Amino acid sequence: MPLDAAPYLVALDAELRAIVSAPEPVHAPLYNMLRYHLGWAAPDGGALQGAHGKRLRPLLCLLTCEAVGGAWRRALPAAAAIELIHNFSLIHDDIEDDSATRHGRATVWKLWGMAQGINAGDALWSLARLAVYRLGGQGHPADTVLAVARRLDETCLALCHGQHLDISFEGRLDVTEQDYGKMIAGKTAALLSSATATGALLGGAAAPVVDALARLGHELGLAFQMTDDLLGIWGDPAVTGKSAASDLLARKMTMPVIHALRWEAARGEAQLHALYASAKTDDEALAAMLARLEAAGSQAYVRQQAVAHQGAMLAALGGLGMENAAARELERLALGIVGRER
Amino acid sequence: MPLDAAPYLVALDAELRAIVSAPEPVHAPLYNMLRYHLGWAAPDGGALQGAHGKRLRPLLCLLTCEAVGGAWRRALPAAAAIELIHNFSLIHDDIEDDSATRHGRATVWKLWGMAQGINAGDALWSLARLAVYRLGGQGHPADTVLAVARRLDETCLALCHGQHLDISFEGRLDVTEQDYGKMIAGKTAALLSSATATGALLGGAAAPVVDALARLGHELGLAFQMTDDLLGIWGDPAVTGKSAASDLLARKMTMPVIHALRWEAARGEAQLHALYASAKTDDEALAAMLARLEAAGSQAYVRQQAVAHQGAMLAALGGLGMENAAARELERLALGIVGRER
Repeated sequence: MPLDAAPYLVALDAELRAIVSAPEPVHAPLYNMLRYHLGWAAPDGGALQGAHGKRLRPLLCLLTCEAVGGAWRRALPAAAAIELIHNFSLIHDDIEDDSATRHGRATVWKLWGMAQGINAGDALWSLARLAVYRLGGQGHPADTVLAVARRLDETCLALCHGQHLDISFEGRLDVTEQDYGKMIAGKTAALLSSATATGALLGGAAAPVVDALARLGHELGLAFQMTDDLLGIWGDPAVTGKSAASDLLARKMTMPVIHALRWEAARGEAQLHALYASAKTDDEALAAMLARLEAAGSQAYVRQQAVAHQGAMLAALGGLGMENAAARELERLALGIVGRER
Repeated sequence: MPLDAAPYLVALDAELRAIVSAPEPVHAPLYNMLRYHLGWAAPDGGALQGAHGKRLRPLLCLLTCEAVGGAWRRALPAAAAIELIHNFSLIHDDIEDDSATRHGRATVWKLWGMAQGINAGDALWSLARLAVYRLGGQGHPADTVLAVARRLDETCLALCHGQHLDISFEGRLDVTEQDYGKMIAGKTAALLSSATATGALLGGAAAPVVDALARLGHELGLAFQMTDDLLGIWGDPAVTGKSAASDLLARKMTMPVIHALRWEAARGEAQLHALYASAKTDDEALAAMLARLEAAGSQAYVRQQAVAHQGAMLAALGGLGMENAAARELERLALGIVGRER
């Protein structure tokens, strides 16, 4: 019988709401921006039910804590911090990418302007950090709290390193698979890795186990991002909520494109290169780009890479020999990463 | 004989440079943005000598540590973290305020674009946080490091609270002195307060002394911001590097303006109100605004308030009975806040 995720999500939601709470009425408009972004409120502050993200990262943290033999509730502050770090980075990314919508809703900066948007992201990040000190209230000693705080701060720096590379890749057609690997290691894998690592740390795992689980989260993150890249080109618009081949239209330098450009260059060709350098976004140009990716076998190649990272993750998990429901749920989550539809 | 600040500034500079250092060459362009902002590099990354900020906040931290009987070098990581938090907030403020220059140099976002600018600020903030863990290397126990980290995180949240109010005051002519007080408490006083508090904490002061020094930094911060407000209207452009009455031209809602608007309203008048609501920036409009501020006695009023906060700070300092060179230097710094020319 699969583990029921509901109790984890309910407890996480309560923790998040306790953290993201205006200390006095004068600051309520700022906190409404954050509540709106988190899916709890309408733009006017009115309560909303339902719609929020997948909560993949905090679930990984809680399940890892339990899988190594810890009490998952004692990891809730770290799980909440990780989800808030993820969301702070989304608020800033939406400004940096000039994105007007996210999951079909207007982005924070689009509703409240760029200045309030940047500041709202900064505020959410501050709250994420303050969440970490709640671990003390769960009985964790100061050096454990410090170890978690430090890992999360190192992760935030890695996010910025990855984001810097991502932005600087724009308009460049010479990005290598190695460059790309450094970019997604920071931008995506670091936070998933710190989710499993902090879960293990708070569950009382020994250092080698924490390290193994950190690597496992890293592999999962790479598989996750490569799948995202596949969905950005071949995802079903009805399911992803984005336009067809949206990453090609935006000329994003994702792994399938990097692969196809390299394949072309090796053959002395430059059709995709020329299309990517052009501003064309009509159906004909789109079809031509997709045909080049098809000819290069880029979809199959990237899928293969994603499956390989997923496999490395599952092998690492198996190697730890954790025979319990939480470990099986981690396995199930990992299996759902590649092949997901959104 | 006044205390020589040079050894403190030299050691601080070394600490800052050790923290803001690219971990691998691929990230050098990001770190060059940070080095540029800190005054160490030209836009192309070439080393620069000289020009940097006043370093008021880290000096307050180091001197307070020494004044309470601590070894100031052991507070260097916290002093560096505080200076980096200040600078991260400047990078984001420059974007939020649409400022093209700072101290006569192009701002980070103006040189590298808004996306890289936001991300560079985030990276500097991450580095500030990571600096705090260097306190462990100075022999401070985990609970002291946690106490410093927590205070700095609370300060960052207060900065965001203050910044939210500041942005939301734009275009509003009904801002009260109480609203203004909440805004500058977060935007300016919180960081000066955490400079003195963390210095005291790391110097081994007892909790009541830490609290007293935190309040002292808060008072100093209020006096500092009020003086800034005075300089934004009556500062000498040749010294401040800004245009004459720049805050009036930008319609900033600073304390002298709030005072004059209230004075007007009490008399049933609305000349400044009408001018502030208009888009006029010609010499005639400027002269008319200055005349209203003069009639209301706003310059004298704000100066009096600044002096009162400075006095409260000096009284608190005197009350602590610290008879040493560092305490005298703190007093000298405080005396220089009001009446400074830039």
